[in-house]
Amino acid sequence: MKKLRIAYQGEKGAYSELAARRYFPSKSLELIPHKTFADVFHAIAGRRVDSGIVPVENTLNGGIREVFNLLDEQAVYVTGEIKLRISHMLLGVRGSRLAGIRKVYSHPQALLQCRKFIRHAGLSQAEYYDTAGAAKLVAEQNDPSIGAIAGQSAADDYGLVVLKKNIESDGKNFTRFLVVSRDSVVPGDADKTTVVFSLRNQPGALHKILSVFAIRDIDLLSIDSIPIVGKPWEYKFFIDFRGRVFEETASRAIEHLRELCPHVKVIGSYKEGRTAY
Amino acid sequence: MKKLRIAYQGEKGAYSELAARRYFPSKSLELIPHKTFADVFHAIAGRRVDSGIVPVENTLNGGIREVFNLLDEQAVYVTGEIKLRISHMLLGVRGSRLAGIRKVYSHPQALLQCRKFIRHAGLSQAEYYDTAGAAKLVAEQNDPSIGAIAGQSAADDYGLVVLKKNIESDGKNFTRFLVVSRDSVVPGDADKTTVVFSLRNQPGALHKILSVFAIRDIDLLSIDSIPIVGKPWEYKFFIDFRGRVFEETASRAIEHLRELCPHVKVIGSYKEGRTAY
Repeated sequence: MKKLRIAYQGEKGAYSELAARRYFPSKSLELIPHKTFADVFHAIAGRRVDSGIVPVENTLNGGIREVFNLLDEQAVYVTGEIKLRISHMLLGVRGSRLAGIRKVYSHPQALLQCRKFIRHAGLSQAEYYDTAGAAKLVAEQNDPSIGAIAGQSAADDYGLVVLKKNIESDGKNFTRFLVVSRDSVVPGDADKTTVVFSLRNQPGALHKILSVFAIRDIDLLSIDSIPIVGKPWEYKFFIDFRGRVFEETASRAIEHLRELCPHVKVIGSYKEGRTAY
Repeated sequence: MKKLRIAYQGEKGAYSELAARRYFPSKSLELIPHKTFADVFHAIAGRRVDSGIVPVENTLNGGIREVFNLLDEQAVYVTGEIKLRISHMLLGVRGSRLAGIRKVYSHPQALLQCRKFIRHAGLSQAEYYDTAGAAKLVAEQNDPSIGAIAGQSAADDYGLVVLKKNIESDGKNFTRFLVVSRDSVVPGDADKTTVVFSLRNQPGALHKILSVFAIRDIDLLSIDSIPIVGKPWEYKFFIDFRGRVFEETASRAIEHLRELCPHVKVIGSYKEGRTAY
């Protein structure tokens, strides 16, 4: 049986890898780490993998703008979604103790999510490109004054001990991941659609666009504004709405959107993700 | 003459300090550095300073969510705005050369804004809480393989040399700063208002809110959605619109907003900021 090749950002043990294992039930998965989000998208667009999985939003820190931009710019589509409960842990080498930790390494998003703990414990912090990569670094340095913020699987993978669990600022910490593919495949049970568009520069433009959905009783799930690079103080908007592109109401709304906006891309229709732990 | 005491985040030489100097024409300014944004807001709310100045949006990376949250949560108001052209430079110690730099330190926002340069030059990067603080660190370490990404004033303040200018990903790099005070003062020439609100959880809620502005021909300047901590997948919205709170049209729109939303705070009416260099 041919293995399904899935790209993700980070090292072995990253939350994205866990999200991939939860989303794809198959045992014959090949999970392929990449250093940056751009690398993941290039692997998908170049068909070097079957799909990729990327975080798009965290309930403490909001949308990840680099991923939104890549979804718009690259020739890829969203085909699925999964939400993952994130539980950050402070990890150290064997023999280290919580009171002895002076400095922590982690991904900037994880450092942000644990900023109250870091401040309270008086730790210095250093950014690393990935939570699992930070765990690997700590294991290699073998210094009991250095810790990593990562998940259980990173502790297992690199032989670290858990010094403290659940160190995120708020217990309700979830990350939403999207499954991204080269081809626009709409699953039969899709119930959610993502579109990106830019506005003509005129008063009431955004209200007009939201009318496209309101007059059709289409429920908006979220809206994000992302700055357009090279056009200061102009934005593009990402909207998630209830419905799928092949239904009449949704497809008419999208036609209407194309009438009104200089740029529209349907990022995908997919089934709203369940929450995994 | 009593000095005006202004709080900002970062070390001497930070972009916020420059923004404060451009905004306040007075010679008798006392600019007081603080380590975190929360520290700046606490100093303002506790009346330990007259005002503070904080970055709220960058044209490459978008809104700074931590600042949005503090504006909503703390008992403070916005009384002014200024936009600053940001030009990042790679700085090193005397005797260092561009080709010899292996690692750069800077604030996470500046690292993001220069990611193309960093990747192209094959540098490793480390997060520091402030651009000027990174410059200070590089000066202290006195190692020709380490650089900082910061501005000209940081180079001057810490005796570093400029190894490369304008290393940001896109030339059109501006940061918008807000002047924040304990009291809600509306300048006579105010032409812009910021409000934050949350929505009732019902279909079409956001469209209904935008109608409040559309039916009164009020021009929306920007909209930002910020996740509500502790309520996964719920958001509050920050809107900038043309008008001032003491005009009839704007004050009716705000009354209408209070009718429809469980939470509304008028963050301030102020004069739209000029662009400084």
